[in-house]
Amino acid sequence: MTRTVYLNGDWLPETEAKISVFDRGYTMGDAIYEVTCVLDGKLADYSAHAARLKRSAHELGMQIPLDDDALLAAHRKLVEVNGLTEGLVYLQLSRGASDRDFTYPRDGAPMTLVMYTQPKKAIDNPQAETGIAVITLPDLRWGRRDIKTVQLLWPSMAKMEAMAAGAQDAWLVEDGFVTEASSATAHIVTADGVLVTRDLSRALLPGVTRAAVIALAQDHGLRVEERAFTVAEATAAREAFITSASNFVLPVVRVDGADIGDGIPGPVARELRRIYIDTRRAGAI
Amino acid sequence: MTRTVYLNGDWLPETEAKISVFDRGYTMGDAIYEVTCVLDGKLADYSAHAARLKRSAHELGMQIPLDDDALLAAHRKLVEVNGLTEGLVYLQLSRGASDRDFTYPRDGAPMTLVMYTQPKKAIDNPQAETGIAVITLPDLRWGRRDIKTVQLLWPSMAKMEAMAAGAQDAWLVEDGFVTEASSATAHIVTADGVLVTRDLSRALLPGVTRAAVIALAQDHGLRVEERAFTVAEATAAREAFITSASNFVLPVVRVDGADIGDGIPGPVARELRRIYIDTRRAGAI
Repeated sequence: MTRTVYLNGDWLPETEAKISVFDRGYTMGDAIYEVTCVLDGKLADYSAHAARLKRSAHELGMQIPLDDDALLAAHRKLVEVNGLTEGLVYLQLSRGASDRDFTYPRDGAPMTLVMYTQPKKAIDNPQAETGIAVITLPDLRWGRRDIKTVQLLWPSMAKMEAMAAGAQDAWLVEDGFVTEASSATAHIVTADGVLVTRDLSRALLPGVTRAAVIALAQDHGLRVEERAFTVAEATAAREAFITSASNFVLPVVRVDGADIGDGIPGPVARELRRIYIDTRRAGAI
Repeated sequence: MTRTVYLNGDWLPETEAKISVFDRGYTMGDAIYEVTCVLDGKLADYSAHAARLKRSAHELGMQIPLDDDALLAAHRKLVEVNGLTEGLVYLQLSRGASDRDFTYPRDGAPMTLVMYTQPKKAIDNPQAETGIAVITLPDLRWGRRDIKTVQLLWPSMAKMEAMAAGAQDAWLVEDGFVTEASSATAHIVTADGVLVTRDLSRALLPGVTRAAVIALAQDHGLRVEERAFTVAEATAAREAFITSASNFVLPVVRVDGADIGDGIPGPVARELRRIYIDTRRAGAI
């Protein structure tokens, strides 16, 4: 089946969804994005993704060409026309086509807004049963990781390096502390049963799923500490996991070859995954 | 006049030169580029640009879809069909269209190669007479600046910040040392008349013009030190300038509001600019 892609107000077969080679998203990395999970044909945590998109746009002086209602309507129509029941909606906003220049074009240059769907078995994910292995790598990304831009080459390279090492993902490390997974938030559960997740700063993305899982953990009586943790703390942890919009809560069972706890998914990660999926399904719009 | 753009073997009017919204250059910053200056309708320093393109491609495991002869022929044809006498050829190579994934697609996924011209009065540049003012900003770019990728958002943001501050460019600073200008190499001439330019590493791009100017300076008896320098050394310098393929040697007369030397372009920068233009014109192919 050919997907239908949203592009600047048009609904196009995926093979016809094209942008100018002069688009600044292509030539300068001047673009932001969001990934929203679709469960039972509905959008999970949509309002938090829409809010983060606004923040990213604000940080870069970009205008979002659709108002709130139109953006939600476009998401819903995209899910509907593609008959998507489970997977994700990818949205990318770039500063449009203009002759290549480091300075932004003057007011009025039209932005490029593209959205498309990707099917994914998000709930019945075999990795949720087995857990994943990660390696650690230096965090070579830029200094404004709080903005969700498409400058994703280092995360890609890190993921490739992880696969080559027989792992499934990489945790990125800066000044001895874990910042994030290559495309997800990194968490540990200490021997004392404390959920530790890095505090927000320009060093990492304010994860939508991160925020939801912290809130759920606290609601269920777990102690949460928002602070940076080292690789040594991770390997000594009782449990480890990552969170992201399309992976939900995914157990990490090995870090740099060392088993975490018993080397199998732990009860906290399992329970948080279950609660997260239940609440997102119930709250999806 | 509508430019003719090269795109994967096709020669297209610029309005029809389009790529898939799934191109990894657009969604992941997974693309490299080169900018070659055109003087008198010929390519300046072409072989050095072609060599650096190969190096960037190698670092990222990319295949260049044209062999050496075909790539040069495409550059020349592009200059010819667009009637370009002075300006630049922009080349971008991206890892082509595939469903969004952090891991690279398997072998055989076709790359996207695009090339287009931009006219520019490179020789008669009024800024060469006046010099430019720069501000310094933290270097927030990623850790592999030796690869010429399109992840150029921080350089763009830095240039915008420089303009807002009444300057023309920004010099990026890391751990107290200048790495580069936003899109050029930074150089100073000390009170002792020594040309100081940062030594190559992953922190900065191996500038084609940087290498040419260092060689020319040495040929003309100037002492050259390749080492990092601080902002304080820059403001205390006798002269400062930047080098890039389309700016050649461009004097910097103010750093963070402080005059460099007499606040006017100095003799070393002027002379190196003259020699550089003469030799590149003579050697252009």
